Amino acid sequence: MSKIKIAVLGYGNLGRGVELVARKSSDMELVAVFTRREPSSVKTYGAKVYSQDEILAHKGEFDVLVLCGGSATDLPTQTPEFLKNFNVVDSFDTHAKIPEHFANVDKNAKANNTVGVIAVGWDPGLFSLNRLYGESILENGNTYTFWGKGVSQGHSDAIRRIEGVVDARQYTVPIESALKSVRNGENPELSTRAKHLRDCYVVVKDGADKARIEHEIKTMPNYFADYDTSVNFIDLETLKRDHGGIPHGGFVLRSGESGENGETKHLIEFSLKLDSNPEFTASVLVAYARAAYRLAKKGESGAYSVFDIAPALISPKTPEELRKEIL
Amino acid sequence: MSKIKIAVLGYGNLGRGVELVARKSSDMELVAVFTRREPSSVKTYGAKVYSQDEILAHKGEFDVLVLCGGSATDLPTQTPEFLKNFNVVDSFDTHAKIPEHFANVDKNAKANNTVGVIAVGWDPGLFSLNRLYGESILENGNTYTFWGKGVSQGHSDAIRRIEGVVDARQYTVPIESALKSVRNGENPELSTRAKHLRDCYVVVKDGADKARIEHEIKTMPNYFADYDTSVNFIDLETLKRDHGGIPHGGFVLRSGESGENGETKHLIEFSLKLDSNPEFTASVLVAYARAAYRLAKKGESGAYSVFDIAPALISPKTPEELRKEIL
Repeated sequence: MSKIKIAVLGYGNLGRGVELVARKSSDMELVAVFTRREPSSVKTYGAKVYSQDEILAHKGEFDVLVLCGGSATDLPTQTPEFLKNFNVVDSFDTHAKIPEHFANVDKNAKANNTVGVIAVGWDPGLFSLNRLYGESILENGNTYTFWGKGVSQGHSDAIRRIEGVVDARQYTVPIESALKSVRNGENPELSTRAKHLRDCYVVVKDGADKARIEHEIKTMPNYFADYDTSVNFIDLETLKRDHGGIPHGGFVLRSGESGENGETKHLIEFSLKLDSNPEFTASVLVAYARAAYRLAKKGESGAYSVFDIAPALISPKTPEELRKEIL
Repeated sequence: MSKIKIAVLGYGNLGRGVELVARKSSDMELVAVFTRREPSSVKTYGAKVYSQDEILAHKGEFDVLVLCGGSATDLPTQTPEFLKNFNVVDSFDTHAKIPEHFANVDKNAKANNTVGVIAVGWDPGLFSLNRLYGESILENGNTYTFWGKGVSQGHSDAIRRIEGVVDARQYTVPIESALKSVRNGENPELSTRAKHLRDCYVVVKDGADKARIEHEIKTMPNYFADYDTSVNFIDLETLKRDHGGIPHGGFVLRSGESGENGETKHLIEFSLKLDSNPEFTASVLVAYARAAYRLAKKGESGAYSVFDIAPALISPKTPEELRKEIL
């Protein structure tokens, strides 16, 4: 049986994750990596590397292009553009701009008879699915999303921009008492501060003013001011040794009720504990690349999110195997 | 906006659950209950009750028929039969016979241009979905399903059949140390005994031989012999007061890995904690009745399981609302 062929555009942490996942897949293979960099400078685990400029010359050599660029500047233009020639999957994660991105993708995909699956990953992605299943099944209830414990790249970068900081790692941590209240069916109203705390590990230059840096972090609007934040100064060696990974995870809970007067309580809980955020996101992308391939093969076209894709389409198993083995 | 109209066939715990859920739904309403009993003997929360024999006279008055009979004898014949005139949803839960049931349903649904959604509930149902998402995303790993803590009707019934027993309630309890080992990524091989224990509350006749009854329970093949089982003798009043509910729940875990040599570990965990097994199952049935209605309206026909249904189809929200609000 021939495998489903995918290619990657952009070889950072996410692109590398797609290569690692595809290497161990039963039915998918990575046939090419396309990059903006000089191809000879990109070291993969074996995948062939080409310049992004020559991607059209490789049309027909793969079934789905997995876009591994960033949501801020790359994907808003890349996804609609590459849909003109390829089926694509992206991990667009700017929640507020998803409707606009979906519309742009849908237009070009339909015009070019291709499939574009957007906002794939774990949030948006698996967490979105669990919010949907939870609120659809327990119509009367509340949904809670908690993130962490995990590294927030955005918050780590914000600390690095402070004068005197050499490097930093910020962990987002869900507050256990808030989780417990939700699990107890108390349906709490939780402020930003009550849901998560922010735990920072910071390396500073010799002689830097630690008190000033700590103050700047804790009072930074949007990023830290609304949270209880702890700042730990450590040396570079410790940062590299103990904080080198990119773990993440979190929880989606639906607390709902049924019965004549809501007297019957139910709790649905979904959680992730991930050693590597990009490698797990890559795992989701590869599974949905399988769905994109199948949708295109059936002659479908247009934009899709995880909400629009029947679960069976992401499995390497046939519908018959799925019903027999795991239904 | 007019609501989606559903009817129920069979008014036991599950049928009553569907009525309770539909009463609180934003877009679904229960318009009729059909029963094998004398209709005047069936007391609902307000739904009209008719004899099952006159159901054809009501054709056209509702969009989807929710079958609330049992999997052993009712559903294998009911689902294919009622598909000749109605779109149906059932909670068929005999895992080993699902492929056969699906084939029977598919044939009649296609022949009559109707939609049949089978095996809807939480296991099969939501647990199946989580097994699928887990093994599709983390192709390299192990899936674990634990049930409970919850009442097993089958095991409770088995105890009631023992000479001298008046009534009984059996709880299936997942073993915490096994769950912990899975969560730690140890990928344990778990025997039947290592995963669940069985906790029994038994009311016996005056003068009954408790030692014999306890021995008969603990050595009963298939039901108890392969488990660590505890037997607690209580009086009828205590049983009614403390063990009157039908709670259930459980866990689906996927422990998987990525990285160059599987060195990166990931855990996906889904769990349910339900005050009422039938009311929650009814909640899932009502959500998938919404999907059955929409599939039929699009002109689709045939058998479906939860694997074949795009998640957006079960939500009362539009695709646009879903993308804007929860993706």
